[in-house]
Amino acid sequence: MNILIGLEKFLPCLQLNKSMALKGAVFKGTVLKGIILNTIITQQERNDFYKVLYGRRDVRSEFLPDSVADEVLERILQAAHHAPSVGFSQPWNFILLRDQQIKQSIHRLHQEANAEAAEMFADKRQQDYRQIKLAGILDAPINICITCDRERGGSVVLGKTHQPEMDIYSTVCAVQNLQLAARAENIGVGWVSIMDKQKLKSLLKIPERIEVVAYLCIGHVSQFYDEPELQVKGWKDRTDLAGLVSTDQWDPKN
Amino acid sequence: MNILIGLEKFLPCLQLNKSMALKGAVFKGTVLKGIILNTIITQQERNDFYKVLYGRRDVRSEFLPDSVADEVLERILQAAHHAPSVGFSQPWNFILLRDQQIKQSIHRLHQEANAEAAEMFADKRQQDYRQIKLAGILDAPINICITCDRERGGSVVLGKTHQPEMDIYSTVCAVQNLQLAARAENIGVGWVSIMDKQKLKSLLKIPERIEVVAYLCIGHVSQFYDEPELQVKGWKDRTDLAGLVSTDQWDPKN
Repeated sequence: MNILIGLEKFLPCLQLNKSMALKGAVFKGTVLKGIILNTIITQQERNDFYKVLYGRRDVRSEFLPDSVADEVLERILQAAHHAPSVGFSQPWNFILLRDQQIKQSIHRLHQEANAEAAEMFADKRQQDYRQIKLAGILDAPINICITCDRERGGSVVLGKTHQPEMDIYSTVCAVQNLQLAARAENIGVGWVSIMDKQKLKSLLKIPERIEVVAYLCIGHVSQFYDEPELQVKGWKDRTDLAGLVSTDQWDPKN
Repeated sequence: MNILIGLEKFLPCLQLNKSMALKGAVFKGTVLKGIILNTIITQQERNDFYKVLYGRRDVRSEFLPDSVADEVLERILQAAHHAPSVGFSQPWNFILLRDQQIKQSIHRLHQEANAEAAEMFADKRQQDYRQIKLAGILDAPINICITCDRERGGSVVLGKTHQPEMDIYSTVCAVQNLQLAARAENIGVGWVSIMDKQKLKSLLKIPERIEVVAYLCIGHVSQFYDEPELQVKGWKDRTDLAGLVSTDQWDPKN
């Protein structure tokens, strides 16, 4: 089975694979500039997918001032918008931050919180903490605030009846799609969580019912780390997966 | 810059791209069975990544009984384990559910919640709701419960000081990595949220401090839908992205 989905509007870069197009694709548009999505992912496509997934890093210090092309930004946002969402409610909004004065105010919110955070660590750990740059708010040309509308879809949403937090989780899925798509576009993303969300909300005039889920710094980078920066800098090692997996019930060793 | 990361243990399927290996890769192992991660993602690799991302669907009715190979399952779990996590805390655990009796009990939890959920919709909407199958718990050969340990990493975790929910969000990122990697492996995933989490926790002997984030059904499928099932079945349409994006502050129209 082959599928053509109408991505031509937002994925102009994608080229048609002719051999796939001939295998019975359903043409939904008159002009074919999109991509044929064959339901079978091949070994090569899988490798390429994993290269993006394993090459993704959280970026704080490597942002370049170069602007991000509009079409690249749109593809990244479309990838976020195609995340799974509870009851197909698509509860997210994206606030793009480019104004240098607003970014300055947000940078100050981060600095304020980061000073408080540093004090919570003891001795050597505090010294280490102070040496790690944790946000590129001013360096990255674009910041994006991603929010979740807790009322999107009305009072009863399919799939949210017993787990009301599912709208927030859907929004986090959109954030992760965005982070991976950015890596596929060779664009760096840094998630800034050291910040008072209430103060951010009032700065950006975000209404009470709307939840801020993520604040991201976005831009071209000088390089991506081989491994997570916190691992490279000796803050924490990667856990062995085997110890995190159990079968048929919770592992009492954990 | 080229990178070799030691994926040979868990990604035995990945083949070495020789032309990339010659471009100055850093060899970290003696036997090279892994993958070269060149930091530049090419146009072709990006297309392949997007094919996976846009081809992902939430699966409920198309599961086949065929078992999922261990190495495929391990790659999917490793992809989840390589999600970003706050302070590199990796707060997740994975409980694999294969026992038919346990799955039966969980299926009953879903049925119970689903009957309550149906009653919340009015008239025609309730009829439609009752006609959509919303979980493949018994059909899928494996189910996975993904949890978040709220105490992983101790009482002060870098990045969690001002947003304690970041550990939950990290776990959702792992869920989304898992969903995408499964699609890359031609494996279907269905996220079941119509269920009482407290009852699920006691069934699986999950301690109080551990939060259940996602319950997933996993298996081979007869097909993937072209578009989200809820869209195909007329439950809800995709929103236009343009209306969800604003600049420098919240859009008062939303």
